[in-house]
Amino acid sequence: MSGSRTVTIGLLGFGVVGQGVWKNIEQNRSALEKRLGVHLSISKIVVRSLDRERAIQVPRQILSEDPDSILEDPTIDIICELIGGTDTALDWTERALKAGKIVISANKALICEHGESLFQLARKHGGHYLFEASVAGGIPIIKTLREALVANRFNLIYGILNGTSNYILTRMEREGLSFDETLGDARKLGYVEADESLDLDGIDAAHKVVILAYLAHGKWIQLKDIICEGIRSISSEDIEIANQLGYKIKLLGIIARDFKTNALSVRLHPSLISKSETVASVDEVYNAVSVTGDVVGTTVLIGRGAGQDATSSSVISDIADAVSLLKGTSSIDRFNEVGSLSDDEKRVELAKSEVLESRYYIRFKVRDEEGVLAKLSNIMAQYHISFATVNQKELSDGSALIMVTTHSTYEASILSACKDIKEATAVLEDPVSIRIFDPSTH
Amino acid sequence: MSGSRTVTIGLLGFGVVGQGVWKNIEQNRSALEKRLGVHLSISKIVVRSLDRERAIQVPRQILSEDPDSILEDPTIDIICELIGGTDTALDWTERALKAGKIVISANKALICEHGESLFQLARKHGGHYLFEASVAGGIPIIKTLREALVANRFNLIYGILNGTSNYILTRMEREGLSFDETLGDARKLGYVEADESLDLDGIDAAHKVVILAYLAHGKWIQLKDIICEGIRSISSEDIEIANQLGYKIKLLGIIARDFKTNALSVRLHPSLISKSETVASVDEVYNAVSVTGDVVGTTVLIGRGAGQDATSSSVISDIADAVSLLKGTSSIDRFNEVGSLSDDEKRVELAKSEVLESRYYIRFKVRDEEGVLAKLSNIMAQYHISFATVNQKELSDGSALIMVTTHSTYEASILSACKDIKEATAVLEDPVSIRIFDPSTH
Repeated sequence: MSGSRTVTIGLLGFGVVGQGVWKNIEQNRSALEKRLGVHLSISKIVVRSLDRERAIQVPRQILSEDPDSILEDPTIDIICELIGGTDTALDWTERALKAGKIVISANKALICEHGESLFQLARKHGGHYLFEASVAGGIPIIKTLREALVANRFNLIYGILNGTSNYILTRMEREGLSFDETLGDARKLGYVEADESLDLDGIDAAHKVVILAYLAHGKWIQLKDIICEGIRSISSEDIEIANQLGYKIKLLGIIARDFKTNALSVRLHPSLISKSETVASVDEVYNAVSVTGDVVGTTVLIGRGAGQDATSSSVISDIADAVSLLKGTSSIDRFNEVGSLSDDEKRVELAKSEVLESRYYIRFKVRDEEGVLAKLSNIMAQYHISFATVNQKELSDGSALIMVTTHSTYEASILSACKDIKEATAVLEDPVSIRIFDPSTH
Repeated sequence: MSGSRTVTIGLLGFGVVGQGVWKNIEQNRSALEKRLGVHLSISKIVVRSLDRERAIQVPRQILSEDPDSILEDPTIDIICELIGGTDTALDWTERALKAGKIVISANKALICEHGESLFQLARKHGGHYLFEASVAGGIPIIKTLREALVANRFNLIYGILNGTSNYILTRMEREGLSFDETLGDARKLGYVEADESLDLDGIDAAHKVVILAYLAHGKWIQLKDIICEGIRSISSEDIEIANQLGYKIKLLGIIARDFKTNALSVRLHPSLISKSETVASVDEVYNAVSVTGDVVGTTVLIGRGAGQDATSSSVISDIADAVSLLKGTSSIDRFNEVGSLSDDEKRVELAKSEVLESRYYIRFKVRDEEGVLAKLSNIMAQYHISFATVNQKELSDGSALIMVTTHSTYEASILSACKDIKEATAVLEDPVSIRIFDPSTH
């Protein structure tokens, strides 16, 4: 390795992921440098406070509180933005890309909100913006979509993209616990983000769905334009009935494209999914992505969705691609912006959620009195919704739960029917509806 | 796209995979060319007979029976070897690599037997040898190991690498059929290779194991040096008992490395694997590969292992990488030969199979008479093998099956014990032993 070029890396941020990148480069340095044919040097790390205690010790002189020590240093080849958030991170990323640097990011929120302009900036100034770590931690879904499955058009991409939600649903299922009981444990284990809404309202997973939809279909979707629902309303009864009917409840991101109409359905919501699907069997903090291409068929990737090591594995994979770019030998310019998609691919239109067709599971809490079920089914019938299964459960307070699944119907019909039912006197709470997802019809 | 460079491709062979490559490039040509920034032209196809009927029609003038029409044509950039076999394919591949071409192959037998010299040839003459389609069809396992998981050292890689065997085992399990009954159906469906031994004796899957072991550990293993057992001896009783004990029987390729001792265990054999493992739930013709890296943790990839479309998706992925190489912009020189591995990585030693430690399932066919079980367990005890479970089943012919699982023991002990037991008078057939695979101890 003597005489090899040295590639210089600056880390913006030295939290969980930053320390993981340092630790794992040190741990496998000799193998990694041999494979890449260069020396790797992390020459500067920008931190908020020099005095903070850290699990990983680094030489004091490479730490700095001044972002300019990286952003203004012409000797730095690769900049890893690992601070998160969308304010300072945006500013620093823009400055780095304007300087023509290769920027590596695990910041799904930033890419989701500003990806379109950031990729343009990278292209304009000859830099690159790499983001394997932003979606599903240790699962190489970005590289798989961009490179390995380049021959394909993607009919359906769906999966579990938030480990915290999946952990909570798994515990609820295995132990019959309520959402709140499990949430407490998840908090204690440090699984829940400081801004809990990111995990519990589906926003974190929706960020990833937006990024995957862009990669597969070349369209930047606005978060506000898609269904985005978290797992707060799921009860242990829902999971129990789903189980009896042969389903699991998973928080699924779904990107379905109809190549005949060019309609693209992008959504993130809890779903009943048949236990026979591989994705349904992915539990705990694991993530899973199922990709159906018109050539390859269905390929499923499963792995750790978050955590220091899995995420830093993907950051280091991006560093390796960046090294190839610096040596003038990389292929990751593919797909870097919408301009590289064909006209046909860009013709896609986001489908309105009201026209979504699906089967539904619905839970009603009602007064346990005569004729309630008849009343419910009459209202449903007015919207041409028919029941496939009905389960009723008596509660100790004299009320009852009625849990139904429907035959296929429209989202708009369900919304209207539930609105009417809510106003019926015997109904005690807002009905909770969960879509039933069938990958073969999506 | 006007003014873009044209990349010229020659196909050696136009069977199932060759026709798939043609068909799928035509089908998604506009999207593919836009992504790659070049025109793709398949300018010549070498076939054994011009007059043969084919499902895919191509212009007559690009077909030829003369391999020199590709191998001697300096205008051809990329040569796809899709004829299979290890004689003519070796000759043509060597000629192409000596001419400095990029050669793409789906030929696992050829790579397994001659990979070491072919990669050296590619390096020496400035060509490249790409082989994503050679292992697990539509699963991008080569790219994942070489690029996405570049930060990792691989403790364990294991999985289902032969779709035909997996199909037979799945049918046996679901319908309680015998091996022979299911084999007949697999033949009718065209799932079994002309040389049946490739599928049924595990040779096809072992070829893939050898390729993965090289990629992960930089060592070319000889097929003759590893355990390679197919599924012919599996009975429906084995599957039934395994099921009762919480296992499935799968034909697994296993590559386990101990980084402390540098011992590398490479093997291919039917295995009992806990139903709770994701790989155990992969049925039918699907393949699955589970990769445990020291950084990323465990990642599982599942997809179609063979077939025209899945395989051609991977060939086209290699064509895309070849285009990047031709544009001077690719990273796939990584890992191209053992020389790119660190000294530490090359220090690996193939473990002897006799020292393999495992739990075992063993089936004995015995005369149904007093004291047989005692006799068996006495012989086992002499080799310090103790039973974990015992099941006995009476057969209509007055004999009985005794099916045991053992606590952890050595391969050598099992072999010796089974040899002794075979000579016992009450034992009617050679005992059948199947290893129990536990990914957490491997």
